[in-house]
Amino acid sequence: MAKKIISFASDFGLQDGSVGVVKGVISRIDKDILVNDISHQIPPQDIKYGSLLLMRAIQYIPQGVLLAVVDPGVGTDRKAIAITTDWGVMIGPDNGLLNLACATVGGAQKAYALENENWIIPHEGNTFHARDIFAPFAAGYASGDLKLEEFGPELDLEDLKQYLIPLTDITDDEIKGEVLYIDEFGNCQTNISPQELTEKDFKIGDVIPIKIDNQELSAKWCETYKNETIGGIGIVIDSWGMASLFLSNGNAQKLLNCKDNSKVIIKVSN
Amino acid sequence: MAKKIISFASDFGLQDGSVGVVKGVISRIDKDILVNDISHQIPPQDIKYGSLLLMRAIQYIPQGVLLAVVDPGVGTDRKAIAITTDWGVMIGPDNGLLNLACATVGGAQKAYALENENWIIPHEGNTFHARDIFAPFAAGYASGDLKLEEFGPELDLEDLKQYLIPLTDITDDEIKGEVLYIDEFGNCQTNISPQELTEKDFKIGDVIPIKIDNQELSAKWCETYKNETIGGIGIVIDSWGMASLFLSNGNAQKLLNCKDNSKVIIKVSN
Amino acid sequence: MAKKIISFASDFGLQDGSVGVVKGVISRIDKDILVNDISHQIPPQDIKYGSLLLMRAIQYIPQGVLLAVVDPGVGTDRKAIAITTDWGVMIGPDNGLLNLACATVGGAQKAYALENENWIIPHEGNTFHARDIFAPFAAGYASGDLKLEEFGPELDLEDLKQYLIPLTDITDDEIKGEVLYIDEFGNCQTNISPQELTEKDFKIGDVIPIKIDNQELSAKWCETYKNETIGGIGIVIDSWGMASLFLSNGNAQKLLNCKDNSKVIIKVSN
Repeated sequence: MAKKIISFASDFGLQDGSVGVVKGVISRIDKDILVNDISHQIPPQDIKYGSLLLMRAIQYIPQGVLLAVVDPGVGTDRKAIAITTDWGVMIGPDNGLLNLACATVGGAQKAYALENENWIIPHEGNTFHARDIFAPFAAGYASGDLKLEEFGPELDLEDLKQYLIPLTDITDDEIKGEVLYIDEFGNCQTNISPQELTEKDFKIGDVIPIKIDNQELSAKWCETYKNETIGGIGIVIDSWGMASLFLSNGNAQKLLNCKDNSKVIIKVSN
Repeated sequence: MAKKIISFASDFGLQDGSVGVVKGVISRIDKDILVNDISHQIPPQDIKYGSLLLMRAIQYIPQGVLLAVVDPGVGTDRKAIAITTDWGVMIGPDNGLLNLACATVGGAQKAYALENENWIIPHEGNTFHARDIFAPFAAGYASGDLKLEEFGPELDLEDLKQYLIPLTDITDDEIKGEVLYIDEFGNCQTNISPQELTEKDFKIGDVIPIKIDNQELSAKWCETYKNETIGGIGIVIDSWGMASLFLSNGNAQKLLNCKDNSKVIIKVSN
Repeated sequence: MAKKIISFASDFGLQDGSVGVVKGVISRIDKDILVNDISHQIPPQDIKYGSLLLMRAIQYIPQGVLLAVVDPGVGTDRKAIAITTDWGVMIGPDNGLLNLACATVGGAQKAYALENENWIIPHEGNTFHARDIFAPFAAGYASGDLKLEEFGPELDLEDLKQYLIPLTDITDDEIKGEVLYIDEFGNCQTNISPQELTEKDFKIGDVIPIKIDNQELSAKWCETYKNETIGGIGIVIDSWGMASLFLSNGNAQKLLNCKDNSKVIIKVSN
């Protein structure tokens, strides 16, 4: 029989024991479940960061069950949900954290609210939803003891919250995108794909005119993070497949003084 | 056969490989043991923090074996011990780290010193007790190869070190407690229980007069971390079941300028 | 059958999901492989730190497969390699990260380049080598599906990159060493062994004249980290078996203002 694995991501940090407690709850329900930690250092309450992280990870992690918790709305009436996909079942809060991961594996098929009281751990005081709701449903499902249809009422997919990656806006003269994500080395990933560049006849080696916020510059499209133009910003297709701005042996974000959501406009000469 | 699990908490941090080495020692003794990490970022040498963390976690983590190391007295004559409880066996230094967890699951039953030389890894230089003593005993016991009676001499439970949560002091006019723990959001957990509040006829929705250090204020007892009184401190029963001071969308600790051990006095009007 | 374990160390940090993705890749290849995390907080690109960490850990972690990635040369022509030893197979970049660990377990026996295209995950954009190359080879080997001889061309051991611990220089009058590693408590581990001290007739309890950078001082050789000389630097054989400078209840590094690679000269009186 295939081993039961739950992949687990959260913004809980690793200090206060919350992650260990959630894994303990899973283990008490079924000792044979193995938990694969994706990250527990998603910046607190940062749904965008969590959403992009899950989108990138989903195709590499074992199919089956994803438990993901970044939950600024805990204690409000936001629903606790499970979404079924070709990849498996994704469990978390209904706040847009899961939809990019769903879309990456072919889209949501069905959704259920986690409302079966038999699988909610009763607790005096405020509910710690990951411990008391999300983990028991994930473990019950992974163990085979809890069927999807027993989770709670089926939800209309149309009603689920969505986090959407901002789309590029492409005209004859410009590709208008933005900075999606800045990594710890200061590389600035944009929402511009290599296809969007090649459709405008750019190719590797080209020096491409770019406007970031209101600075104009030229950036060479490089094959790797090595750019022989000393001190110059380069463009590279990063390991997630998106155009990213970098500075060889330096920090592009600091040089450009740009930030999350900064506008990135690529000028197309016709 | 039930899978063998060791739950492991420490103040080792995650950088220098100590946690991996301890888990390696366990794995070399029995490859089938699964280690559930509770936290390795207990603040260095903070027995109070570790003790409270274990007390909260113990009822959620799989019964069997707990390995817990926060050990400012390493290298002195403090004993290395194992304590048996209804939950299972808890292994660590004799410095009060374990007794709250023991009490939470019904109390210590027996205690042993870890002195069986066959299970201590010899080492030139200073002993790294988690690697050389605690881990081999935990793994030997979990694997079934080492019986409790073989650990070393049985100890008198009366002689074990204790860390005690400061008790509240309740009079007709006051509930005197203190701040036990401040979380990363600035919520200030006290040692006051909801029972102590209801016995003084307070109920959810009441505005309760409080003195913290020498500041007087009123705090509304709220059901969740949402307090509609803008800018006001609220009281909530937190996910560990204790009365906690919070500030909606803010940081209660900063507003109150209070700290660990700050006195919290609730005034009772008769 | 013995369980399959891969020990995994890197400088990826724990935030961005890279570690979870690499473990996901392993799990997709064989769900029965257990990953033992050694550390993922090796300082970024610090081959020396990683190399010493692996050297210390290797004898404690389960024999079989080591996956280690600290890889400042990713994207250049540095090779991806596997080295066989009595301990098992070590997989990582060819930059000296692995050779101290190899030497600790009896030395490298054979080495192979990871070039079998069937085991490299194709990817648009820059390759994330841990995900796309190192992990599949490690998992394929651990699972038994990929033989060493199928990894790629065998390499000449002479051609592998080496990271070497700086040797001490011993004369009649002096032991010249240096600071290898400063831990989070400010203890300064040197490359001087207890044997080198005893061969010069020093023994525990002696007060030993030392010069660090250009400061002269006397340090007592103590058995533990307790030094009764208030405020004085002590020497202790640390839990890795090397002479280390410490300050009881203080921070030796700050007192001495020394750093990684600071020269440490022990004066021998004849």
